[in-house]
Amino acid sequence: MTYCVGMQLDRGIVFMSDTRTNAGVDNISTFRKMAHFEAPGERCITLMTAGNLATTQAVVSLLQERSKSPEQRSPDIEHLPTMFQVAQLVGQTLREVIARHDGDGGQKASSAFNATILLGGQIKGGAPRLFLIYPEGNFIEASDDTPYFQIGETKYGRPILVRAYDPAMSFEEAMKLLLVSFDSTIKANLSVALPLDFHIYDADSLKLGRTGRIHAEDAYFQEISSGWGVALREAFTNLPDFRFPEQQD
Amino acid sequence: MTYCVGMQLDRGIVFMSDTRTNAGVDNISTFRKMAHFEAPGERCITLMTAGNLATTQAVVSLLQERSKSPEQRSPDIEHLPTMFQVAQLVGQTLREVIARHDGDGGQKASSAFNATILLGGQIKGGAPRLFLIYPEGNFIEASDDTPYFQIGETKYGRPILVRAYDPAMSFEEAMKLLLVSFDSTIKANLSVALPLDFHIYDADSLKLGRTGRIHAEDAYFQEISSGWGVALREAFTNLPDFRFPEQQD
Repeated sequence: MTYCVGMQLDRGIVFMSDTRTNAGVDNISTFRKMAHFEAPGERCITLMTAGNLATTQAVVSLLQERSKSPEQRSPDIEHLPTMFQVAQLVGQTLREVIARHDGDGGQKASSAFNATILLGGQIKGGAPRLFLIYPEGNFIEASDDTPYFQIGETKYGRPILVRAYDPAMSFEEAMKLLLVSFDSTIKANLSVALPLDFHIYDADSLKLGRTGRIHAEDAYFQEISSGWGVALREAFTNLPDFRFPEQQD
Repeated sequence: MTYCVGMQLDRGIVFMSDTRTNAGVDNISTFRKMAHFEAPGERCITLMTAGNLATTQAVVSLLQERSKSPEQRSPDIEHLPTMFQVAQLVGQTLREVIARHDGDGGQKASSAFNATILLGGQIKGGAPRLFLIYPEGNFIEASDDTPYFQIGETKYGRPILVRAYDPAMSFEEAMKLLLVSFDSTIKANLSVALPLDFHIYDADSLKLGRTGRIHAEDAYFQEISSGWGVALREAFTNLPDFRFPEQQD
């Protein structure tokens, strides 16, 4: 599995992805699941992927190759005029890659080649937008009602997002929120692991913002991880205990 | 889906189950998923079930019928001498019911008839024991390392169990912990819902302990649900914010 979150804020979009891939619990590796397409002053696009690694790598490579190829006839990810068209292109590419694997040699387990993609960013003339793209190539867009998307192992880290997300939060608070959500997931599920990649996209900057990788030995991550455990236990202790009917007055 | 938790404590075993069943989101119902077998002073056994409702109801009915039938040749759930043998019997019964459905008319989707069972309790002469029984009829037992089991929609409510469980906790604290865990699950997933059934088994009492049903309008549940949201946000706010490298000294 995998865990990736894209979160739309008033000030921009925050992206975070883990790096664990596994084919069985005895075959784990570290792979980057975040890719960027940037033309400073004109566009900045971030992709995060969950699912079959061969599929997701092929999608990203195809998008890159086609944007480099001069004789390419149809517009590519670096030249399409809107984020909506970029989402369509990424969706088509994903579908094409999955269909190619499914077709070859009559492999039946289509779900085995599946992947899901989070796509976010901004192109000059448009607003920052965030999409979740399904293996079928169709997609949905984040809105004020649902301003963040998770893909992969989404359940453990969801309750804190539901409770603490606020569109007006600072990037520093958003990073804290994501790290708490990732920490809860990592603590409960072997298929999600550090290091974590992040990208903070500043709305209207039209260039790559702060990016980085958070390792297991990162002091802040350790502070959040142990601090959150202590804070949770404290919050829990401070809630009133249950009272059985015979104890009630 | 469903959410049930069985939790072994120093003072006994706490059971909690939700009551929502669904066949699609447009066909939801309320069913009790907890059953008891009691012979005061001799044994007290609690079952909680997740999975296909026809399967789980058939298992419980078969166990009840066979314990009532006087001409039954093999020992039943009310007469077997140990919890281990009860777990074997429940596992066999579960397997038998699933196999019957799978065989009939050549239905293929075997997983559709699947179910998982939490079984806990105590029989005179033995200690309180807690088992998780798989659709295949085999089972695992809780231990000091893994003193609680969840079945059904387990992921949302797991982080708080991992962080706040303590075998020495009181029943009142245990109820609070379970309600927080259930509340996190209910907030994030439509397939788990109130009312919640509970049973508190006092170790060595060999009789049904406190049981009850917690409804949506229960004042304590509402206090926990809103209080936990506030406490989480507060705990989150009190953690230090992330600092980007350029902000660090």
